[in-house]
Amino acid sequence: MSEYKKELEIAKNIARDAGLIMLKYFDGDQHVEIKEDNSQVTIADKLINSLVIERLKVVFPEDGVVGEEESNTEYGTGRKWFCDPIDGTMAFIWGTPTSMFSLALVVDGIPVLGVVYDPFLDKLYEAVVNQGSFCNGHPLKVSNKELNDGLVVTTSSINKIMKRPNHLVRLSEMGVRFATFSGAVYKACLVAKGKAEAYFEDGVNAYDIAAVQVIVEESGGKVTNIKGEKLDYTKPFKGAVISNKTSHDEMVKCCS
Amino acid sequence: MSEYKKELEIAKNIARDAGLIMLKYFDGDQHVEIKEDNSQVTIADKLINSLVIERLKVVFPEDGVVGEEESNTEYGTGRKWFCDPIDGTMAFIWGTPTSMFSLALVVDGIPVLGVVYDPFLDKLYEAVVNQGSFCNGHPLKVSNKELNDGLVVTTSSINKIMKRPNHLVRLSEMGVRFATFSGAVYKACLVAKGKAEAYFEDGVNAYDIAAVQVIVEESGGKVTNIKGEKLDYTKPFKGAVISNKTSHDEMVKCCS
Repeated sequence: MSEYKKELEIAKNIARDAGLIMLKYFDGDQHVEIKEDNSQVTIADKLINSLVIERLKVVFPEDGVVGEEESNTEYGTGRKWFCDPIDGTMAFIWGTPTSMFSLALVVDGIPVLGVVYDPFLDKLYEAVVNQGSFCNGHPLKVSNKELNDGLVVTTSSINKIMKRPNHLVRLSEMGVRFATFSGAVYKACLVAKGKAEAYFEDGVNAYDIAAVQVIVEESGGKVTNIKGEKLDYTKPFKGAVISNKTSHDEMVKCCS
Repeated sequence: MSEYKKELEIAKNIARDAGLIMLKYFDGDQHVEIKEDNSQVTIADKLINSLVIERLKVVFPEDGVVGEEESNTEYGTGRKWFCDPIDGTMAFIWGTPTSMFSLALVVDGIPVLGVVYDPFLDKLYEAVVNQGSFCNGHPLKVSNKELNDGLVVTTSSINKIMKRPNHLVRLSEMGVRFATFSGAVYKACLVAKGKAEAYFEDGVNAYDIAAVQVIVEESGGKVTNIKGEKLDYTKPFKGAVISNKTSHDEMVKCCS
């Protein structure tokens, strides 16, 4: 039996149920609240995070869950599930369908399984280390374009962009095309499927990108911290460079 | 019989067929080309624009069509159909589902009927002057929030935002929340349905917003040029302020 076969099956089932909750609240009253860090959260984020904790507790009672809204463990070694119940909560609140559910299994600080789900287009992305990456069963593959011929996905924060961060200025001077919208996971999936060459955001958290790290790497891409170093999921971090590998070094040079 | 009943029925049929073409090319080879103005166009834009011209010629042979990719008439008085075959072509190329089909009937420079279609969420928005606005049959209504309590949708051009345009600086200082992604029509629909309070972009063209002007106005909102004046569709123009009406004067003050 393939390694992590049961984990993958359970994660995919949870993803589809999370998607139903997302669809239910996309157009309706989302009970939006402001969190301590001034970001927004909806009732759907909370319901999905609880669902993940409850469902995993039944099947893998020894495993912990690190979620954006709720956790039952701390960062560290061992088996931990990293969950962003709705990645791109802003998109979800605005009413644009680029928010996604994200769930990863991290073992001793290394993501080994990732499942993300786009319930609007009904696209389920999945990957297990050394077993390839797939969207609805079709293999994913990054592009082989260089950066200056490519599309770079970036932050949707108008206030951040108006500060003219160095990396955006450098990339702009290189003549790259930019794409922006809310949703780190959706952005990373564009890299995994070869639609975009690279994605950098200094604000992403470990639970935002644990799942897409596996998906992007299994699609032939690369994921590191801003300095081009391996990410360590045994503790919280911010920021990542996600690329098609071909453009990674140049992207790191622009961002660091 | 309601005024423009036949026109509305035809426009909705065309919209659904345009949506099928959008779905067909969303994930596949889009034959992307660069236009003279350096913007991108796909084969789907061209196919849909041709479809609109052919279908309208059969039913309303006296009417002209002003399309983003192809026209069979000039701007002016009389009956003209304004079409953006795929509004948000960038979103379409990136692979984000915020591009929409847009078709309006303009009579003597005034939009009187608007149909826009989001094939990804299967949402058809329609409005005829004095007959209300609807999304999949449900009436639309703008919000009544002031700007400083609101969400403002804006350009997705990173290069434009990095130039720190005055209106974005002013709005940011007021503490408004911003939303950005590609798709003028999708953005205007967020205003029409009360998800966002206002939208301004200096780059939008007459054919981009003719249909949503009717939809936003029939939802209780307001659409003007940057100076707060009525738009004149008898000739080409650039730029518009689209709002929930409550915030319109303040938005115009910020943008002009």
